[in-house]
Amino acid sequence: MLALFEPGTSVAGVFTRSTMASAPVDWCRANLERPEDAEGRALIVNAGKSNAFTGKAGAETVKAVGAALAELAGCRRRDVFQASTGVIGQPFPAEELTRHFERMIGRAKPGGVLEAARAIMTTDTFPKVATRTAKIDGQKVTLAGIAKGSGMIAPDMATMLSFLFTDAAIPSPVLQTLLVLTVRETFNLITVDGDTSTSDTVLLFATGKAGNAAIARAGDSRLGDFRDQLQSLMADLAQQVVRDGEGASKFVRVRVKGAESAKAARTVAFAIGNSPLVKTAIAGEDANWGRVVMAVGKSGEKADRDRLGIKFGGLPVASRGGIDPKYDEKALSDYMTGQEIEIEADLAVGKGEAEIWTCDLTHGYISINADYRS
Amino acid sequence: MLALFEPGTSVAGVFTRSTMASAPVDWCRANLERPEDAEGRALIVNAGKSNAFTGKAGAETVKAVGAALAELAGCRRRDVFQASTGVIGQPFPAEELTRHFERMIGRAKPGGVLEAARAIMTTDTFPKVATRTAKIDGQKVTLAGIAKGSGMIAPDMATMLSFLFTDAAIPSPVLQTLLVLTVRETFNLITVDGDTSTSDTVLLFATGKAGNAAIARAGDSRLGDFRDQLQSLMADLAQQVVRDGEGASKFVRVRVKGAESAKAARTVAFAIGNSPLVKTAIAGEDANWGRVVMAVGKSGEKADRDRLGIKFGGLPVASRGGIDPKYDEKALSDYMTGQEIEIEADLAVGKGEAEIWTCDLTHGYISINADYRS
Repeated sequence: MLALFEPGTSVAGVFTRSTMASAPVDWCRANLERPEDAEGRALIVNAGKSNAFTGKAGAETVKAVGAALAELAGCRRRDVFQASTGVIGQPFPAEELTRHFERMIGRAKPGGVLEAARAIMTTDTFPKVATRTAKIDGQKVTLAGIAKGSGMIAPDMATMLSFLFTDAAIPSPVLQTLLVLTVRETFNLITVDGDTSTSDTVLLFATGKAGNAAIARAGDSRLGDFRDQLQSLMADLAQQVVRDGEGASKFVRVRVKGAESAKAARTVAFAIGNSPLVKTAIAGEDANWGRVVMAVGKSGEKADRDRLGIKFGGLPVASRGGIDPKYDEKALSDYMTGQEIEIEADLAVGKGEAEIWTCDLTHGYISINADYRS
Repeated sequence: MLALFEPGTSVAGVFTRSTMASAPVDWCRANLERPEDAEGRALIVNAGKSNAFTGKAGAETVKAVGAALAELAGCRRRDVFQASTGVIGQPFPAEELTRHFERMIGRAKPGGVLEAARAIMTTDTFPKVATRTAKIDGQKVTLAGIAKGSGMIAPDMATMLSFLFTDAAIPSPVLQTLLVLTVRETFNLITVDGDTSTSDTVLLFATGKAGNAAIARAGDSRLGDFRDQLQSLMADLAQQVVRDGEGASKFVRVRVKGAESAKAARTVAFAIGNSPLVKTAIAGEDANWGRVVMAVGKSGEKADRDRLGIKFGGLPVASRGGIDPKYDEKALSDYMTGQEIEIEADLAVGKGEAEIWTCDLTHGYISINADYRS
């Protein structure tokens, strides 16, 4: 997938926290070291080989790819952004990509977002696209985004690639602040398997073609609607990634309240959302709330065992440290056959809240991952 | 399972770190609050209901069970030890256990370790037993142990029950020190699914019948052989638990060296050993070392990406931040068909080392846990 942007396009990026970051991640990070000087003119993404853990050969490949694309796009090398997804540890020559550049650039046209989403898929079963509109200071702007990723998904940051585009005029440093804050409340709330990849990349490009007056502070109230719509767009894509989790049959929302802090609530929510026993029970359509108790207990965060409350889809299952008097096995069993499952735990020790999104753990996950080398 | 011990039997225990500890765990912990006064005269274990998250009803059950058994065994209530494994959140009346006591006590006889191991099984596919002998100050003593557990297995402390018996004469406080230290190097090194239970319990009883001179310090060199044999016994049982991990087809040893510290090495080893992607690859007999790179990267511990080395069963796969020149796909594929898999990672930043034991992740795990309510 190759994208070209007009001169003057702002750009921002957030990347994996893995200490084993891929060569393309290293490349993009270097490009964004000084956000005030960052410009995004070209983006090249390949699926199949991740160029992670490829040593000097990998670094040379991204350098050659960057140089070749910069020349064809008529921009600085540092204005070229790269991302790769696929098998770890297989170096490949730049030529494997560069030989396609002339043909791809010849065919480049506005739009094509759905085709772009398709091009970056690996084990994904559907392309992930979302669009929104917002107003900045009265001027209508458009946002569009694509994402890929269905395994090796966990914060920080969900193993995935996502590319976001807007015609809003927003300087790169402001864009960077908005992106970091919004990743925290969207892509960092998802998990499929608790595994974090070497290649996680989210890039946001802003062409400025909408012609709104540029705004110099991320906190400026005139950006309020844009911030909301960006968050909505990214939450949409994040949830699409989880819905397409490898082998997933159900979307799961885990809400934790009554924790000591928001951070503690998030830790507990992920302990529930990453528990293989909780996830297999959901796959089996079993309202196995005892495993939720287990996950709360193993999280290490403070919780009041004798006042802990648990609900599945609003149906009370546990309260005051035991089974709820209104526990209704029939209603619960019916609820568990649905495709959207909500688990709520009230730790009863404070006011901290969090919500995360995940999926169930099925035979499909095993089949995909015992056979596919990624 | 019911066991009776002679007057004067020392006892020590280590329990789950879950904040949702079960009623039997609460009971045993209270009994051991003052090790210098701890005596073990009776042990009752049931499988099927864990009496975890059962509130006041659960606490009343263990109290009634303790009282009934104390009366029949002619001991203090605090000399009775209890453990339960099974479904969380289902209270049950003491009567379900106590009505069997007279009959069970009537049939109690020396030995019977294998039957005891069978009695405490849940999803286990085989009973777990080990025995050792040691010399204390010239006097031969015997050690025997049983364990159960195959899912909800993770430190701290592996979700399991294990009961250890010896005829050595060792005071309870000394026994407690030995047990805590040895759990750290055995049961705390295993993981099946990263899930920690509410009911983990290891109890060690020492009858003193061997007649060795009592020793007042755990560090006394006369206890050296006993310490070694206790560690060997517990490592054996711990590995049996992992070999019988739910759905497991392979035993996996993960060794990490070159870490900043032993603690960091252990964190990385568990990141590898708990990774669903690593575990499914092993199930698929795929030497997918890229996923080991991923797991090292997500652990958060310091590692040198450009000097990281990885071996499978001693066969080099990665070195100096890339694929090893001696990489041999054929030899690796053959190796991966075996039932014992060893993964070694050298982080190349220090001298910290660790080893942990786990198993692969198969369709069997999903089948067992999507259908079985535990």
